[in-house]
Amino acid sequence: MSQLSSTELFQFILAITVMLGFGKGFGELFRKLKQAPVVGEIIAGIILGPTILGYFFPDLLKFVFPESGPVGYSLEAITQLSILFLLLAVGLEVDLGILIRYGKSALITTFYGMLIPFIFGFAVAFLIPQFFIDNPDERLIFALFLGTALSISALPIIARTLLDLNIFRTKLGMMIIASAMFNDLIGWIAFSIFLSVAEGTGTGLSIVSPIVLILLFTAVMIVIVRKLFHRMIPWVQKELSWPGGIIGFIMVMGLVGALITEKLGMHTILGAFIMGVALGDSVHLRESTREIIQQFITNIFAPLFFVYIGLRINFLTAFDPTIVIIVLVLGFAGKIIGAGYGAYKGGFGKNESFAVGFAMNSRGVLEIILSLFALEMGIINESLFVGIIFLVVISSILSGPLIKLSLGKDKLKGFVQLLSSEDIVISNAVSKRDAVMELVELACSKHKLDKTNVFNEVWKREESLSTGIENHLAIPHAKIDIKKPIAVIALNKDGLNFEAADNELSKIIVLLLTPKNENELQLKLLSEVANLFADKTNSKEIINSDSSEEILSKLVKIKSRME
Amino acid sequence: MSQLSSTELFQFILAITVMLGFGKGFGELFRKLKQAPVVGEIIAGIILGPTILGYFFPDLLKFVFPESGPVGYSLEAITQLSILFLLLAVGLEVDLGILIRYGKSALITTFYGMLIPFIFGFAVAFLIPQFFIDNPDERLIFALFLGTALSISALPIIARTLLDLNIFRTKLGMMIIASAMFNDLIGWIAFSIFLSVAEGTGTGLSIVSPIVLILLFTAVMIVIVRKLFHRMIPWVQKELSWPGGIIGFIMVMGLVGALITEKLGMHTILGAFIMGVALGDSVHLRESTREIIQQFITNIFAPLFFVYIGLRINFLTAFDPTIVIIVLVLGFAGKIIGAGYGAYKGGFGKNESFAVGFAMNSRGVLEIILSLFALEMGIINESLFVGIIFLVVISSILSGPLIKLSLGKDKLKGFVQLLSSEDIVISNAVSKRDAVMELVELACSKHKLDKTNVFNEVWKREESLSTGIENHLAIPHAKIDIKKPIAVIALNKDGLNFEAADNELSKIIVLLLTPKNENELQLKLLSEVANLFADKTNSKEIINSDSSEEILSKLVKIKSRME
Repeated sequence: MSQLSSTELFQFILAITVMLGFGKGFGELFRKLKQAPVVGEIIAGIILGPTILGYFFPDLLKFVFPESGPVGYSLEAITQLSILFLLLAVGLEVDLGILIRYGKSALITTFYGMLIPFIFGFAVAFLIPQFFIDNPDERLIFALFLGTALSISALPIIARTLLDLNIFRTKLGMMIIASAMFNDLIGWIAFSIFLSVAEGTGTGLSIVSPIVLILLFTAVMIVIVRKLFHRMIPWVQKELSWPGGIIGFIMVMGLVGALITEKLGMHTILGAFIMGVALGDSVHLRESTREIIQQFITNIFAPLFFVYIGLRINFLTAFDPTIVIIVLVLGFAGKIIGAGYGAYKGGFGKNESFAVGFAMNSRGVLEIILSLFALEMGIINESLFVGIIFLVVISSILSGPLIKLSLGKDKLKGFVQLLSSEDIVISNAVSKRDAVMELVELACSKHKLDKTNVFNEVWKREESLSTGIENHLAIPHAKIDIKKPIAVIALNKDGLNFEAADNELSKIIVLLLTPKNENELQLKLLSEVANLFADKTNSKEIINSDSSEEILSKLVKIKSRME
Repeated sequence: MSQLSSTELFQFILAITVMLGFGKGFGELFRKLKQAPVVGEIIAGIILGPTILGYFFPDLLKFVFPESGPVGYSLEAITQLSILFLLLAVGLEVDLGILIRYGKSALITTFYGMLIPFIFGFAVAFLIPQFFIDNPDERLIFALFLGTALSISALPIIARTLLDLNIFRTKLGMMIIASAMFNDLIGWIAFSIFLSVAEGTGTGLSIVSPIVLILLFTAVMIVIVRKLFHRMIPWVQKELSWPGGIIGFIMVMGLVGALITEKLGMHTILGAFIMGVALGDSVHLRESTREIIQQFITNIFAPLFFVYIGLRINFLTAFDPTIVIIVLVLGFAGKIIGAGYGAYKGGFGKNESFAVGFAMNSRGVLEIILSLFALEMGIINESLFVGIIFLVVISSILSGPLIKLSLGKDKLKGFVQLLSSEDIVISNAVSKRDAVMELVELACSKHKLDKTNVFNEVWKREESLSTGIENHLAIPHAKIDIKKPIAVIALNKDGLNFEAADNELSKIIVLLLTPKNENELQLKLLSEVANLFADKTNSKEIINSDSSEEILSKLVKIKSRME
């Protein structure tokens, strides 16, 4: 405590506060705009860094984010620690079970989805290096970089996009996730190999031996250490404090993984990532443990890292439109063609294959880290770095809209897909009438409908024949003058009497409003809802929920189990 | 990323890994020994620091924990950040509602519990300063330090001890917690005042104005800002991502609080703490949000800080038995007499007052941080610092056993107090007989009883008259040849038919075994269990649980609501 002066300490805390505050703020803003929060976090960094803040207030920039000295060191150290934890969290998300289940089509998709963009990137970099780098003699390593950078997709962003589109748990969604996981796994290994080659002396042996080492390390971790963890985790969760013991265990293991790979001459992040994969695969690991770690890392550590990227570079002076356009075209074309073709070969239809291509086109953390290292090693310059960041941002932003476009609206229209968490309430209504009114108000306020009118329609139906169904379900419904179906749900834990056949009180109350002239659609949705809860355990699961988000995610899961 | 060399980065990650690994390891070990984990974490630091590791392997110590240079700076910065977050977490735990409910006796206890040890410390330091410090002219500030250091109790350790003894939610327990919260609140304010005075020039005005500022800041935060947060939190939880948005919000606010107090000339930690109090008081803040933040901070950041303490000082060379004994005697006597007398004045009996004194005698984080600052300012030397650390460790270790001693066994023998989480199972039994057998086996394996015999006794009773009670409860029971009553619980969510009067299936099944000749005790316990669930909401609350720990903590809460 004696080394950092009180001013330095103030500076350090100020820097962390500003990074976290702006990062989270812009992240949330982008989330509201249905974009990946990471894009907002990077933009927050660009605003706080030399590009904007430094342009107008250079002295302020130097005070808040000093480049050197104790505060500079400390900021860098905590950012580096953040990347490690972030990679640990990414690794924890990899589900080897899904890889096995969707293995074949996912592998084909991954193969073409990585090969084609790699070839695109490698070829262009090798053939016209003078566009990007000053010294064309180093074209081989540069070509390796560009090929690798273009061929890796971003699992977290893809998962997020699929969740937003409500197709995460469909067969198509799970195949995309499986491909993205393969991609991640292979991507990080390729990344480590690239780093070893880049740092190596260039002789044949010095390239082969790290590759062997990396593959060996990965294999040992995933085959042997994973099983050890699988046995240890129940012990840790039972014998140590909960969840403190297991949280500490996972974090320490992530750090140990980083140290091992560093000592083996690979990079720390590979170790953290693979350790995450080995740990996260255990079914014994409780969901709440994963949740605490994920939430804290993605919400506190990750923003620090993403904001830091923008702090490092002046995006305005380094912006070169030609390079940005080349990188964008190469990246988009290679990935969409490659992954799309792979999905098509894997048995998907044309539209779905395009959707896969668009989904896999999302880039993220790995590109950014890889480019950062390449920049620091002098393999690329700032202009290309900015080009890659543009690729990350634009590919991520466009992913959702492009998938929607390719799938059309039909695929996205089932009952569960109609819902967002805003359409679900925890209700304390004490009568059937109150509950129906509550739901009608919820639906009408969102869709700007006349609530008296809608209520009358629903109530008329309800009075003629009450809509209680078995297993605590009730589906009040009506056909009204709208274009698209509307569904809202109330969970009423005390239960209300909707005169269900099994004499149970209705706790899950679904209000279904459908367009006037579409009989088919109403029937389809009604039977879909009824089917959803035909199994007692499903309705139980929903009733034991405490928030709209929880209900929605459980519904999505139930739906996917039934497909 | 360009500044830290790859060796420095490795060193930094190695240091964090070792600190976290050893800290958590020893913390868990001490938890197993029914001690506060913080004691284990401090001892981990002593082992890793100059006292042990540095004695045998001085070069290794210098490599892993360099005192200066980029790695030294970075370790210090992250440790400082950890204290801030730790204080934020401590603040989040303060429940102003409890302060109001138990206000009167808690205030009296706090008043005497702080005044007497302050007088003890101040008087001894002022009268015989030569024992502790080299320059007796600075005796005033030194006396202020010792008085303050001895008068502050440790809320987290006290809470933990009371939880371990199962008296947390009793009236006595809540009064102790309320006192500890007052103590914390006043303690941190006193701490900030002490720092301002110590750093000030010593003129009258420079002492008074920071005191006024600190009190004003605290008042504004707790009266006005707290209400603002209370209104903002539902918005944050609803509109931003969940739980990411609120986690980010709380962490950023904690940092902002730190920056404000630093700018106002107080210390950063006061701001983080008071911000925590203002945020944590809102009833809107969901339990799971609090949980994620608490768990991550106490399990990742806190160990880094506590281990760091041991790294700083050689406890062997600085160990002075005379000083340790003086500090221990002063600390114990002042606090036990003061808080005990306060509790007695506040209306508690003699034994209970002693228990209050022993509980409040626990010291912790605040003493440590205060002493660290005093050490750095040259107000105290390393020997006294070591003395204070000893006081922290020994007072915390002895707190539990001393409370037990003073309360005797009678007070700790209610139904809920009989239970630990091992005595509770989530059961999937499909018949009444299976469920009873499961419970009998659980009880018998722990207490080494003959399960056939016990089962026969219980089943005989069950067959003569089934023990189902209203609200999904059943209490199979028997008197058998044991010395102390035994209770175990099974939660069976599907419910089993114990022929309850309300025709509902029994989901909460309590097996109660009592000594053969103690009719009274059996009746008392049976009626206690029945009363516990006489209210429908209570049984519902238990049924909606997913783990033994959750059931136990809910039972404790229900019990306390009824007292």
